[in-house]
Amino acid sequence: MNFYSDNVAGAAPEVLAALTEGAAGSMMSYGADPVTARVKARIRGLFETEAEVFPVATGTAGNALAMSVLCPPFGAVYCHAGSHAQVDECGAPEFYTGGAKLMPLEGANGKIAADDLDRALAHGGAGDVHHVQPAALSFTQLSECGTAYTVAEIAALAGIAHGHGLGVHMDGARFANALVALGCSPAEMTWKAGIDILTLGGTKNGCMAAEALVVFKPELARELGFRRKRAGHLFSKMRFLSLQLEAYLADGLWLRLAAHANAQAARLAAGLRTVPGIEIAYPVDGNQIFVAFPPAVREGLAAAGFGFSTWDERLSRLVCAFNTDPADVDALVTATARLSEKAA
Amino acid sequence: MNFYSDNVAGAAPEVLAALTEGAAGSMMSYGADPVTARVKARIRGLFETEAEVFPVATGTAGNALAMSVLCPPFGAVYCHAGSHAQVDECGAPEFYTGGAKLMPLEGANGKIAADDLDRALAHGGAGDVHHVQPAALSFTQLSECGTAYTVAEIAALAGIAHGHGLGVHMDGARFANALVALGCSPAEMTWKAGIDILTLGGTKNGCMAAEALVVFKPELARELGFRRKRAGHLFSKMRFLSLQLEAYLADGLWLRLAAHANAQAARLAAGLRTVPGIEIAYPVDGNQIFVAFPPAVREGLAAAGFGFSTWDERLSRLVCAFNTDPADVDALVTATARLSEKAA
Amino acid sequence: MNFYSDNVAGAAPEVLAALTEGAAGSMMSYGADPVTARVKARIRGLFETEAEVFPVATGTAGNALAMSVLCPPFGAVYCHAGSHAQVDECGAPEFYTGGAKLMPLEGANGKIAADDLDRALAHGGAGDVHHVQPAALSFTQLSECGTAYTVAEIAALAGIAHGHGLGVHMDGARFANALVALGCSPAEMTWKAGIDILTLGGTKNGCMAAEALVVFKPELARELGFRRKRAGHLFSKMRFLSLQLEAYLADGLWLRLAAHANAQAARLAAGLRTVPGIEIAYPVDGNQIFVAFPPAVREGLAAAGFGFSTWDERLSRLVCAFNTDPADVDALVTATARLSEKAA
Amino acid sequence: MNFYSDNVAGAAPEVLAALTEGAAGSMMSYGADPVTARVKARIRGLFETEAEVFPVATGTAGNALAMSVLCPPFGAVYCHAGSHAQVDECGAPEFYTGGAKLMPLEGANGKIAADDLDRALAHGGAGDVHHVQPAALSFTQLSECGTAYTVAEIAALAGIAHGHGLGVHMDGARFANALVALGCSPAEMTWKAGIDILTLGGTKNGCMAAEALVVFKPELARELGFRRKRAGHLFSKMRFLSLQLEAYLADGLWLRLAAHANAQAARLAAGLRTVPGIEIAYPVDGNQIFVAFPPAVREGLAAAGFGFSTWDERLSRLVCAFNTDPADVDALVTATARLSEKAA
Repeated sequence: MNFYSDNVAGAAPEVLAALTEGAAGSMMSYGADPVTARVKARIRGLFETEAEVFPVATGTAGNALAMSVLCPPFGAVYCHAGSHAQVDECGAPEFYTGGAKLMPLEGANGKIAADDLDRALAHGGAGDVHHVQPAALSFTQLSECGTAYTVAEIAALAGIAHGHGLGVHMDGARFANALVALGCSPAEMTWKAGIDILTLGGTKNGCMAAEALVVFKPELARELGFRRKRAGHLFSKMRFLSLQLEAYLADGLWLRLAAHANAQAARLAAGLRTVPGIEIAYPVDGNQIFVAFPPAVREGLAAAGFGFSTWDERLSRLVCAFNTDPADVDALVTATARLSEKAA
Repeated sequence: MNFYSDNVAGAAPEVLAALTEGAAGSMMSYGADPVTARVKARIRGLFETEAEVFPVATGTAGNALAMSVLCPPFGAVYCHAGSHAQVDECGAPEFYTGGAKLMPLEGANGKIAADDLDRALAHGGAGDVHHVQPAALSFTQLSECGTAYTVAEIAALAGIAHGHGLGVHMDGARFANALVALGCSPAEMTWKAGIDILTLGGTKNGCMAAEALVVFKPELARELGFRRKRAGHLFSKMRFLSLQLEAYLADGLWLRLAAHANAQAARLAAGLRTVPGIEIAYPVDGNQIFVAFPPAVREGLAAAGFGFSTWDERLSRLVCAFNTDPADVDALVTATARLSEKAA
Repeated sequence: MNFYSDNVAGAAPEVLAALTEGAAGSMMSYGADPVTARVKARIRGLFETEAEVFPVATGTAGNALAMSVLCPPFGAVYCHAGSHAQVDECGAPEFYTGGAKLMPLEGANGKIAADDLDRALAHGGAGDVHHVQPAALSFTQLSECGTAYTVAEIAALAGIAHGHGLGVHMDGARFANALVALGCSPAEMTWKAGIDILTLGGTKNGCMAAEALVVFKPELARELGFRRKRAGHLFSKMRFLSLQLEAYLADGLWLRLAAHANAQAARLAAGLRTVPGIEIAYPVDGNQIFVAFPPAVREGLAAAGFGFSTWDERLSRLVCAFNTDPADVDALVTATARLSEKAA
Repeated sequence: MNFYSDNVAGAAPEVLAALTEGAAGSMMSYGADPVTARVKARIRGLFETEAEVFPVATGTAGNALAMSVLCPPFGAVYCHAGSHAQVDECGAPEFYTGGAKLMPLEGANGKIAADDLDRALAHGGAGDVHHVQPAALSFTQLSECGTAYTVAEIAALAGIAHGHGLGVHMDGARFANALVALGCSPAEMTWKAGIDILTLGGTKNGCMAAEALVVFKPELARELGFRRKRAGHLFSKMRFLSLQLEAYLADGLWLRLAAHANAQAARLAAGLRTVPGIEIAYPVDGNQIFVAFPPAVREGLAAAGFGFSTWDERLSRLVCAFNTDPADVDALVTATARLSEKAA
């Protein structure tokens, strides 16, 4: 009954089977193997474009590498004030870019508003030698508040960013969850809407540790191989990243897993909404729910063995994963109702 | 019949089984899981000391992180001129240290000689504000030429380094192969001989992608968690690194795998030594052999489907792995003999 | 009639004379000259403590070097949202620290409030591997709004910072102006109040280009010589920095120059306050005034040849320098009065 | 009688006079002053091309900034093993480039041989993801051994470098001395021979602290303003750098000063060559002489108050400056002769 995060889940059986099966025999290292070639082709197919693909093992590595090719050391990356890059990566973007500055923007529901971005860039100091130079926009899909940017919102943000000469990065840690939520195609949610480079997440949705940098502008790919290597993120036995991604993206597994996680979150939200006194903070677009439990209820749930994280003074975060058991969801709702009644 | 490197091998069945078995159920992320706790305890047991342990996925990450806590940005890391850190990491040490300088030392058989280190440090510019400051010694065990530093050699190097105020890092990409070769204990080959921090390799010897930084001086561990995180090397689903390491280190698996690889290399060397005109370049202490094939032989072997790498104008490198088939070894020897005869 | 900044002024005649006089003859380079030794002794005398002293040529260099010894690459520097370090140094702190993060705090009158710092540090994520680690407080005296932190305010901030394990840096670009404003001693305004390292500014107050890092904690000085050198800020002909500083600090010149600048700013403020419709935004503690001119007045002043800078939509910044002519001050007041009347 | 270095000399009277004269009145800061505009125009005139010009205060800053726009963090800068950048800048190139690697090349008389560069680049690992990528050539004119690259040698090196896709930087710490030695034009010694970016030294030849980055390829200038600022090398009172450079380059002062220094070195070399047992190590092209004194002579000279530096076990370095007194030169020769006789 662990709703702490989607990274407390293990890995999907299909992914594990692929690893076991693909482990036999020799394959050339550092990506010169047939599995990696197949994964690249598959991603190009899914995204309907000639993207360059760089598998990595963590989202932080993917995000920071992406920023390092979008933003010079004297540049600025615009992001949400609550974004993973700003808050939860211990300075990885600064490290990989060689000291660039993140420019945090507030925004309702964890999303950057187009107007706020526009206003910030109007005062961004472009061309002024005393200021870091606006270079990139990075935002998270699903956002850290569990909300999905619509395709129109993405296009608006990317349009403003491009209009000011910035490159655009999408942190797709929960890309599949967003895709399922919006019901659009990978191409529509990315390069067709103006994304230049994407961290395509697999880890949170059934892989062990596998992400792919998907680069839609070829000139951004030129440095990435070298930067990945010197960051220690070029796997010698690359096949083991690629096998995960191959299984993940085969036969729609990624979408099925995300759909399951989203459905459990929706089930959880629907259940909690029936409980008086329980408030859900943001639109539940994907697999994350932010709940204002009364303190007694929150403590009661924790005591009963339900795991979730403290988001801020008021909110708890509950995350459903590819393998969340509906029975656990129902148990949580039932326990909440019981505890609420008791507290009332 | 791929002798290109030990990283062209897949993963040991025991490691894969552990992953599959450990994938079920929820576990807290970022290392707060019971597997990681067990691995740390096991490593402490094996090394007979209270070391701090940081699992990472690649050797380059491990090495560069180690250097980043030994060496300030204005410091110098002494290493062999042919070392992985100097030649094959695309500047990872420089990246992680914030711009430190590697000071390459020549040395026979891929090993740094104590006298050479002493002489270099005597002219190292310690205290001179114009010079990078000698801060660390890093060497590879097995060396890049397949040779093992003896315990006495390690102690001599570490003694000199410590005498000049340097920290000492061992790149143990092939640690188990060296251990088997020397027949000593992990403790004897490391902290008892003066090693301050070790990259304990698993990837080349049967893991998918798993190494552990083993830190023998507690003050060196203080920054490592933060540095690992900002480098994108803190796995959210850490259990999947730890499961590999746990299986790898259980019941002597790591030593059995290394012993197999070493034995195949010895078999290969013995076989090749019976062929007139074939020269083996360095002592074959572990699982790597460097062979001066006559060009016609080398080309004949390649044409016959034997994979190995070009080391320099004269030498080819052949590496045996945990899963090298003795039949492949014998086939290579037979083919070499046949081609040599033909060429003569 | 240039009130644009105190850096549009030239240099004090005493400083120039010292340069000319000290230029003759040979002196050892890189700081091993007698002038530098005398300057260090003088600063120790003025600050009544055994500080380490490192002359540099720019305030940005001084500030960034100071932060680089207070804050690790994975650390955070708390500063005012409008501080020079945050806004006007094109990422120098990030560069010198190897990618640390500035944590901007709002605060009235350009000053960080103790409570705000305390609250921010309470949520600073100390010990959390996902967060940059709070490492330093840096604030500007005079602040960027021309206000002076009182000794009590400095002590309060430093106390909170130290209580959380942070080091404390004072950017003293206008140190002398603040000293004159507060009427306290250099020691009282710095180490006695908890400052660990100071950028003692000379450039804005009569030097050509000379600042001194004054380090009150010996352990912070250990790395500074190397860091200054590799940043290209160790002058070979160091005497020319030291000669400026020596003349600047001799016979109270620095205090006389600052007193003059402050007095002109006070005169200007007093004059402008007599003009109806003119608002002065912050307390005028030193040599900077922030004025809300009606647009017509502002444009009229510019057209009449008065130079000043636009601070934001509402405010203009006017700065008096060591050589500001009282007649220019009076002319500005008179012109403002005339233009205001006309506009009314 | 200080022959320790040309940086033990003070500053030329013309430079000091310009500073004093130009210090009066207000000028806009950060380079928006008329003196800086005039200096840029003068340098363009002297170099007969539309170069971009960036004044800085130290050669280390100039060199490191130059490399930072030629070489990415994962790149390599080829230089002489004895070059200032490699040996004497405490890692400044690594710092400014974000961790690039210097690739030191041996070479007689302090000069890189074209063949050696060609051979090194042929094995430079271009395109190999495991290797730092060859990006720049940097060499020193005069070399650290006091020798001048001929125009043909420069063109050969630059041709090879460009042929491999590298940019070319000249560290012109003693540019004027080389120019006088070769008798060619600034254009011939730089961009006409393939130099992309030059550190034009002034400090060692009569300035207090003034160098200019002269950028012959406009695309290399794009980032320099930002990089200079964030390195703390954008002077607020820029006029004081520009006034030095203006005076230095006016009416051939720089050439006269260099000619004097070179002439004194020639006089010194000629004198020493008449003394039996005294060996001069490299061609004396400019103002530096490397002498193998018998130990007794060397000690005698030091005891007699002659200052010079120890270059290595065998050689002493003696440097003449713009203000070296011929009487001091003659005194040194006489003393050497006397001591040699006594020792014999």
